[in-house]
Amino acid sequence: MSVSVNPSDQVCENGTEHVELLPATNDAHGGVIVEMREAMDPRAFLTLLKASISQWRQEGKKGVWIKLPIELVNLVETVVKEGFHYHHAEPQYLMLVYWIPKTTNTIPANASHRVGVGAIILNDEREMLVVQEKSGRFQGTGVWKIPTGLVDEGEDISVAVVREVKEETGIDAEFLEVLAFRQAHKSFFEKSDLFFVCMMRPLSFDIQKQDLEIEAAKWIPLEEYAAQPVIQKHGLFKCIYELCLAKVKGNYAGFSPLSIESIFDDKLSYFYLNRQDVQCLSSSYQS
Amino acid sequence: MSVSVNPSDQVCENGTEHVELLPATNDAHGGVIVEMREAMDPRAFLTLLKASISQWRQEGKKGVWIKLPIELVNLVETVVKEGFHYHHAEPQYLMLVYWIPKTTNTIPANASHRVGVGAIILNDEREMLVVQEKSGRFQGTGVWKIPTGLVDEGEDISVAVVREVKEETGIDAEFLEVLAFRQAHKSFFEKSDLFFVCMMRPLSFDIQKQDLEIEAAKWIPLEEYAAQPVIQKHGLFKCIYELCLAKVKGNYAGFSPLSIESIFDDKLSYFYLNRQDVQCLSSSYQS
Repeated sequence: MSVSVNPSDQVCENGTEHVELLPATNDAHGGVIVEMREAMDPRAFLTLLKASISQWRQEGKKGVWIKLPIELVNLVETVVKEGFHYHHAEPQYLMLVYWIPKTTNTIPANASHRVGVGAIILNDEREMLVVQEKSGRFQGTGVWKIPTGLVDEGEDISVAVVREVKEETGIDAEFLEVLAFRQAHKSFFEKSDLFFVCMMRPLSFDIQKQDLEIEAAKWIPLEEYAAQPVIQKHGLFKCIYELCLAKVKGNYAGFSPLSIESIFDDKLSYFYLNRQDVQCLSSSYQS
Repeated sequence: MSVSVNPSDQVCENGTEHVELLPATNDAHGGVIVEMREAMDPRAFLTLLKASISQWRQEGKKGVWIKLPIELVNLVETVVKEGFHYHHAEPQYLMLVYWIPKTTNTIPANASHRVGVGAIILNDEREMLVVQEKSGRFQGTGVWKIPTGLVDEGEDISVAVVREVKEETGIDAEFLEVLAFRQAHKSFFEKSDLFFVCMMRPLSFDIQKQDLEIEAAKWIPLEEYAAQPVIQKHGLFKCIYELCLAKVKGNYAGFSPLSIESIFDDKLSYFYLNRQDVQCLSSSYQS
């Protein structure tokens, strides 16, 4: 493994002393972020880490974040032994954090929920777009269900559901509303789950099913969908069907998105609300 | 560090061979979960790990999960070098996963969203419960805002918002509806954020503010709240105020929770929907 020390003394600007520090950037909350990229000998790393924390302590820094790509797994033990805790991990990296001050730490909580979407799509013949999945709880059961999938981090709910429908069935569809959502717990280990039921309008009708995850896909008459025993037994499925009927009758208002701007960073985000009931907002904030 | 090998050969039941394996339990998806608890010499651990994976491969197991408490950080490198990836981490543990089969892995995605709540609480004088926070973006600005907080993993939205209001202001309040929600991205590193605006009914009125996070708390006339410049400038705040007005006028329907049962595990979860518009569901599924 090559040894490549990539020190930074950018924090030390007065020229009176030269301390080799880990390369770091300041965050917006008085802390520093170290993104390790190059392999390094653990002992050389430890020396830099100790010097860096000492320097940051003097400077009144608060949280110290260290991101270690999985290739640098040999440095994890060193970081933990200096008092860091795990914060979060993704397949290719581990993020650790250390709180320098004696005050209560204000380290942000880790992500706690996975977010899923389900799509209700009806054509003009009151047929619903449904699939049979190759894996999961309904594998091999012959149950027809609405297309579902997971929202990626950084992805809008209204975008994710369009993507999932296209991927699974080849159908182009437009997002209309969130009709309802379910919160469930312990969906994997201790993490929770939010599932958004979305109303969509089909823009194409020829199904091209995806082979990897989908056993079959078709348009099914609503009555035939509802006649499946599982729809009557399973609370969530029953609710989805009732929402579908209410939409067909035209008397159900869900939440639709409004693009709003943050004063802090000019970032746009979507605010989902019952826009039928607050039309004033719809006109002033629509993107 | 003490060495305590705690092997298990429970998976091997035919009695013809005795292989020392890591202690594991089967999961519901054809995989195994190893929860390491006792310290172990990394070389002894590696021997057991190799034997275990070999055995599980023969048995057709799919995902192998290894949970390492932070005290066993000295085993992380061994696990990664055997081909595992990180799956998720919390302050006190790291979860790693390895997919044995040659088929596409169906390892569940990690949690992608943090979930927050904000409480709109009005008393009979059209005054709103507001706070000034000691940290965060509005620290020292004098801005009065609604009480907000984070939903813990495993916690219902409707429970979290009651808890946060009580913690910050001492006010007892009843959850009524989700009026709207916002999805934002990159709220910390790459993770996203869902923020639910909740309508509450106060059950007590004497404020006992919490000292750690809250600078001040009071009931503020709605007009005075709305007159703050930030309310007019910031999209989210403006929306919250408009929803508040709509509720006062009595013409806004949000989503309220219905308790539904899963057919898979009898677990109850909450389904949030516009119950004013589907009264049939309200009667048949209410818990």
